[in-house]
Amino acid sequence: MSQAATIPTNSAPYAELPAINQQLFEAKAKKGLTFDALAKELGKDEVWVASAFYGQAKFTAEELQKLSQVLGIDQSSLSGALGEHWWPYRGLGPTPPSDPVIYRLYEGVMVYGHSIKAVIHEKFGDGIMSMIDCKVNIEKKPDPKGDRVLLTFDGKFLPYSKW
Amino acid sequence: MSQAATIPTNSAPYAELPAINQQLFEAKAKKGLTFDALAKELGKDEVWVASAFYGQAKFTAEELQKLSQVLGIDQSSLSGALGEHWWPYRGLGPTPPSDPVIYRLYEGVMVYGHSIKAVIHEKFGDGIMSMIDCKVNIEKKPDPKGDRVLLTFDGKFLPYSKW
Amino acid sequence: MSQAATIPTNSAPYAELPAINQQLFEAKAKKGLTFDALAKELGKDEVWVASAFYGQAKFTAEELQKLSQVLGIDQSSLSGALGEHWWPYRGLGPTPPSDPVIYRLYEGVMVYGHSIKAVIHEKFGDGIMSMIDCKVNIEKKPDPKGDRVLLTFDGKFLPYSKW
Amino acid sequence: MSQAATIPTNSAPYAELPAINQQLFEAKAKKGLTFDALAKELGKDEVWVASAFYGQAKFTAEELQKLSQVLGIDQSSLSGALGEHWWPYRGLGPTPPSDPVIYRLYEGVMVYGHSIKAVIHEKFGDGIMSMIDCKVNIEKKPDPKGDRVLLTFDGKFLPYSKW
Amino acid sequence: MSQAATIPTNSAPYAELPAINQQLFEAKAKKGLTFDALAKELGKDEVWVASAFYGQAKFTAEELQKLSQVLGIDQSSLSGALGEHWWPYRGLGPTPPSDPVIYRLYEGVMVYGHSIKAVIHEKFGDGIMSMIDCKVNIEKKPDPKGDRVLLTFDGKFLPYSKW
Amino acid sequence: MSQAATIPTNSAPYAELPAINQQLFEAKAKKGLTFDALAKELGKDEVWVASAFYGQAKFTAEELQKLSQVLGIDQSSLSGALGEHWWPYRGLGPTPPSDPVIYRLYEGVMVYGHSIKAVIHEKFGDGIMSMIDCKVNIEKKPDPKGDRVLLTFDGKFLPYSKW
Amino acid sequence: MSQAATIPTNSAPYAELPAINQQLFEAKAKKGLTFDALAKELGKDEVWVASAFYGQAKFTAEELQKLSQVLGIDQSSLSGALGEHWWPYRGLGPTPPSDPVIYRLYEGVMVYGHSIKAVIHEKFGDGIMSMIDCKVNIEKKPDPKGDRVLLTFDGKFLPYSKW
Amino acid sequence: MSQAATIPTNSAPYAELPAINQQLFEAKAKKGLTFDALAKELGKDEVWVASAFYGQAKFTAEELQKLSQVLGIDQSSLSGALGEHWWPYRGLGPTPPSDPVIYRLYEGVMVYGHSIKAVIHEKFGDGIMSMIDCKVNIEKKPDPKGDRVLLTFDGKFLPYSKW
Amino acid sequence: MSQAATIPTNSAPYAELPAINQQLFEAKAKKGLTFDALAKELGKDEVWVASAFYGQAKFTAEELQKLSQVLGIDQSSLSGALGEHWWPYRGLGPTPPSDPVIYRLYEGVMVYGHSIKAVIHEKFGDGIMSMIDCKVNIEKKPDPKGDRVLLTFDGKFLPYSKW
Amino acid sequence: MSQAATIPTNSAPYAELPAINQQLFEAKAKKGLTFDALAKELGKDEVWVASAFYGQAKFTAEELQKLSQVLGIDQSSLSGALGEHWWPYRGLGPTPPSDPVIYRLYEGVMVYGHSIKAVIHEKFGDGIMSMIDCKVNIEKKPDPKGDRVLLTFDGKFLPYSKW
Repeated sequence: MSQAATIPTNSAPYAELPAINQQLFEAKAKKGLTFDALAKELGKDEVWVASAFYGQAKFTAEELQKLSQVLGIDQSSLSGALGEHWWPYRGLGPTPPSDPVIYRLYEGVMVYGHSIKAVIHEKFGDGIMSMIDCKVNIEKKPDPKGDRVLLTFDGKFLPYSKW
Repeated sequence: MSQAATIPTNSAPYAELPAINQQLFEAKAKKGLTFDALAKELGKDEVWVASAFYGQAKFTAEELQKLSQVLGIDQSSLSGALGEHWWPYRGLGPTPPSDPVIYRLYEGVMVYGHSIKAVIHEKFGDGIMSMIDCKVNIEKKPDPKGDRVLLTFDGKFLPYSKW
Repeated sequence: MSQAATIPTNSAPYAELPAINQQLFEAKAKKGLTFDALAKELGKDEVWVASAFYGQAKFTAEELQKLSQVLGIDQSSLSGALGEHWWPYRGLGPTPPSDPVIYRLYEGVMVYGHSIKAVIHEKFGDGIMSMIDCKVNIEKKPDPKGDRVLLTFDGKFLPYSKW
Repeated sequence: MSQAATIPTNSAPYAELPAINQQLFEAKAKKGLTFDALAKELGKDEVWVASAFYGQAKFTAEELQKLSQVLGIDQSSLSGALGEHWWPYRGLGPTPPSDPVIYRLYEGVMVYGHSIKAVIHEKFGDGIMSMIDCKVNIEKKPDPKGDRVLLTFDGKFLPYSKW
Repeated sequence: MSQAATIPTNSAPYAELPAINQQLFEAKAKKGLTFDALAKELGKDEVWVASAFYGQAKFTAEELQKLSQVLGIDQSSLSGALGEHWWPYRGLGPTPPSDPVIYRLYEGVMVYGHSIKAVIHEKFGDGIMSMIDCKVNIEKKPDPKGDRVLLTFDGKFLPYSKW
Repeated sequence: MSQAATIPTNSAPYAELPAINQQLFEAKAKKGLTFDALAKELGKDEVWVASAFYGQAKFTAEELQKLSQVLGIDQSSLSGALGEHWWPYRGLGPTPPSDPVIYRLYEGVMVYGHSIKAVIHEKFGDGIMSMIDCKVNIEKKPDPKGDRVLLTFDGKFLPYSKW
Repeated sequence: MSQAATIPTNSAPYAELPAINQQLFEAKAKKGLTFDALAKELGKDEVWVASAFYGQAKFTAEELQKLSQVLGIDQSSLSGALGEHWWPYRGLGPTPPSDPVIYRLYEGVMVYGHSIKAVIHEKFGDGIMSMIDCKVNIEKKPDPKGDRVLLTFDGKFLPYSKW
Repeated sequence: MSQAATIPTNSAPYAELPAINQQLFEAKAKKGLTFDALAKELGKDEVWVASAFYGQAKFTAEELQKLSQVLGIDQSSLSGALGEHWWPYRGLGPTPPSDPVIYRLYEGVMVYGHSIKAVIHEKFGDGIMSMIDCKVNIEKKPDPKGDRVLLTFDGKFLPYSKW
Repeated sequence: MSQAATIPTNSAPYAELPAINQQLFEAKAKKGLTFDALAKELGKDEVWVASAFYGQAKFTAEELQKLSQVLGIDQSSLSGALGEHWWPYRGLGPTPPSDPVIYRLYEGVMVYGHSIKAVIHEKFGDGIMSMIDCKVNIEKKPDPKGDRVLLTFDGKFLPYSKW
Repeated sequence: MSQAATIPTNSAPYAELPAINQQLFEAKAKKGLTFDALAKELGKDEVWVASAFYGQAKFTAEELQKLSQVLGIDQSSLSGALGEHWWPYRGLGPTPPSDPVIYRLYEGVMVYGHSIKAVIHEKFGDGIMSMIDCKVNIEKKPDPKGDRVLLTFDGKFLPYSKW
């Protein structure tokens, strides 16, 4: 456990987050916890928990209470800042993203976006894949030629309404 | 089979594609073939075939020959335009994408990009998920509350080199 | 009925539309029909019909057949270009929009967007108002101080999934 | 009532607002009041009150006095900062908006903007729908398939002057 | 009268205009008429007539008939292209404008915009100066130290509605 | 006189101004003075004085001295910060401007810019209307149908040099 | 003299110019004339003549007549396209410029712009160096360590008006 | 000498400069020195000295020592901040520049850039005018019709290498 | 040799090139020549020859003559279009580049640009690495873990002038 | 050794870096160490070490320990801020870069990007040169006509996957 863990609150992407989220990251680092470990404590998935840390999702009161215990952050701070009156302001960081990890996802949209659209239309008709009613999952797939990342979006199909 | 199928070659995204790709789309429409059906003919996956139709991937000589038969396009046209001397110029359409289907993918990058980055680092260390050595798959998952789109990226993890 | 009606296919926003849509506008103009009149023929609403003319929605085969009769356009042209193999590529025109009518809507988003978000969250919780499962309506409300436009968006609330 | 309610004044969209507006949000959160409740106190509509909180509208001296009582903020602070010498600097947040709730409104402009313009012209002639002499309303419309948001803009039609 | 007058229809700003507007400019040039002369024929002001030539305003049927006579353009062409079914798509040219004449106006907005806003608020309260119910006038004011341009915007003040 | 007048120095457009300009605004608000009243004290026009408050023009030493008396600001602060070694860095705020008052001026440039250019050329030849040797004036023109804003730019015509 | 000289009218910067300007460049190339030679024929400076070829300045009727003789272009074509009814639409090419020659000038503005502003203010007071009443000159200055380009802007100082 | 001279370190362009540069400007203002006077002390040209003040050039150790004496700034502060381990990060301010003085230079690039490129190529062949091995000079040229600014760039011509 | 080789002249990056360059690519493809083979014929390096094909460098008259022979293109077409009166307009394609191959180079600038700058300054002092007097080379370095690309820029160091 | 070395933490590019990186730069300056010297201490290359200082690469725990000794920075600060829970957020500075050193690299991408892509495809087939598995090296190559910078990228070729 690294007692002195600090978060660079003046630099990307932390500088754009509420101060309480910066504290969440710092406490997580000090406790030496992964998102996977945290997710198991909260009974949720690691990507979702990470997205809530990055201000992209909203914890319930119960989850905040649990977080308070696990991370040792004063509960009233958490509920005061992230409780019922706070709502995520989503969409973090510049576009196009400069970080290579995030850029690769963006490149995937540019290179495969039209193909994905075409196949969705062929399989489902006119509509979209929801990014609201959507779950995101990451698996590590061992491979002798180099491990692989299995990134899955599981989103509801929403047909366009006509009127 | 709709004999009169036409492709709006003056409008997005077809206007940005080589003329031969527009012919591919037109022939596919006239034959009434889905990307899935075409993919089975070529022994490949539908998303990859769609990406090649959109100029985002490169057919081999054998695949062009097969396409020529299946779609009834003169083989020398295909190999002259898409053969050995042609290389994809990837990245199609404007950003941010205006079409809601493609925008939702882009929104996924903005909302979940940092979370995906964080979890990849926690599971794999410093590096990226390759969008070059990557396969993209779309499944239709029936659901009584509304069918779901299962979109998977299966990409190799590449660790950052140090020197 | 103005026989010589023409559409400026080299200028905004028509230049970005497939040729068949330009023909739709021209035929509508020559017949002297309003979107309201066309909508009554098709059994739909005028805003939706207009959105389909602007390539932002998709007619069914039956609607194309009806359009063919009403506008005197060859049916095979319509079904060849806008039939089963064509899907809308949505999002028309530059942003920010330069035209004052459309800019005012955009200004509404900038001025009232955060308020609308806040009230939606207070009334519905964390989620969005769908622009896919959404109907748009325009009413003329006579007023002695100047008639008013009543513009209504009727969209489904979609709660954010957690996982 | 959550005594410890805090507002993330270093992050979007609060960071762009005058300090007094941040205090308004904080006091509202601490009192546990919705915009609807506040609006009833002020004899106005919730969307308008929210827009004033976001610095997009101007309270009268009487409304500031009422606010002072309801929220327990020193009246001279309110009138000193938001009184007669202050005028809203409207237009909050980046464009295109990254938050999905606000983006959906923006997408509505891109997808339906031309249709709305066309129908306004057909019904009213050459002119615009005012976003200045305009009222915005949000209704919750219960629906067994999922509640719906009814968002209405009621704006005066302004014909273009000729001279 | 220069018989061979031509308009550079492939270059700015004419390339963005409907073909009929290009013909208007060409006919005006061939006839050797100024906007002032044309305006007198139509009983309107020169700036307004120029704005209609640039597709930024709409002629009435009577004005089109008069234009047809004055410029020797076939009337059915004019009414077919600019008649009842056509509506201006306003906002011409890139921003920031590169042409120094137009840029100076834009610079005026950047340098004096806040001052104009402040003085309007002090004199009229919260609201805007309409650019819809607005007349624009240009006078030549002789001056021994160099003639001056007197550019006047005469726009209605619109107070913000509250609700 | 509102003793507690404050200026939101963390928000637009004040945040972009030197601290001394923020003090000018605060002192003006505390004294309850309009720009018109200040202008009369300084023997100048209100729009010019406002532009100097917004850092878009430069006071003389005498004007700073007068301002010091009228507003009760220490003279050495004023002359130290805005005196001989300081020069305006002009152009305030983002473009396109988001505030509706300033946007309408910008819209005027987009809608009438080409017309204004054309009429200037017809009346004066090849050259520009100076925004340096230019005076800006705002008049309130009472009108039973709604008061009007009379905004005038009086700028020297500068012919293009040839060599 | 290269009889077959052609100008790439589909590519930058010629594609943005009126067709007549493209003909000017082609005729100049076929005649094998430099701008210096042309300038001597016209009794003007080479940079100015080049700027007129690039549509950034306006020839007089006499200059067009002379050009017609020197370049062998039909005079009525020249006067019809570039005569009294045509006015330059200035500002050619994208910004920031991608071409290294033009970029270096742009870099000069970024690197030395503030210094030039500061020295102009110190030497002349508050005002600008006119780019309208300005002459541009290029000299070749031989130097054993490599020839040097001497680029001079000779522009009138314009003091800011106050009112 | 104005003892109380201050520099608006929170506003453009000073806010983007290292703190030590802000001190340089403040000391220069307090001493009442022009760049010309400073340049004479340092044995350099005023534009170059100004560019170093704006962080666009690098002083030698000797020049820093001299500056320390002339401006009364502690030498170790100067050498610690601008000494051997610091290198200019060039390119100051936004583009396009909003300040009219700097914009005019930028306009010069847009209006005369292609002409300058063409004449350089005609006189020197394929290559560029260096902005690295370049000197910038400003002269005041008295003129009864208004003084003129003589701005000269004296840059080495660099031919393109081939290999 | 593929007789029917065609170049997609309507799409990126060929659409931005002069027609003659498109012919160069087509002839090269028909002859089945690599840039390496062409470079050997011309006595130059393959990257340089490719850059000339892409309009980013200039052939000499002798090189054009040789190209004419090797590619079977009429020599007068080549010298007429790319001869003495034509100069490269450099900088091809959009930025940031969407194509992954070119984007990786761009990413290299973003990720390693500051490091490269720092090391150049430490090794050479204040100045730049010239991209004008620069040679670019690509080597294939076989490696059992996957072949490697060795990309080298060999550019002259240019010290900043002082004056 | 300059005891008073300071880093301009309020200005580019340091302002975008975590505070600990600013301390690294300061310590390095105070110790008077070059990146080459530091690299030798760490057993790595200077460009890589520089990239880690700029937050573009990640030190191991051992390297942080070594750095702590060499630079005299408290080890727990280093490991707390840059240790296991921190991951680089890569991509530093604006684009296009304004600094001439970095811009030249960017210009290299614009001018030679397509050529490099073409030659890579000819030599390796469809795929990219990795910027992840890549090493960057800078050599000083003495040359009597001016020293040269030898910049090498040594990156793995990654073929596009098909599926």
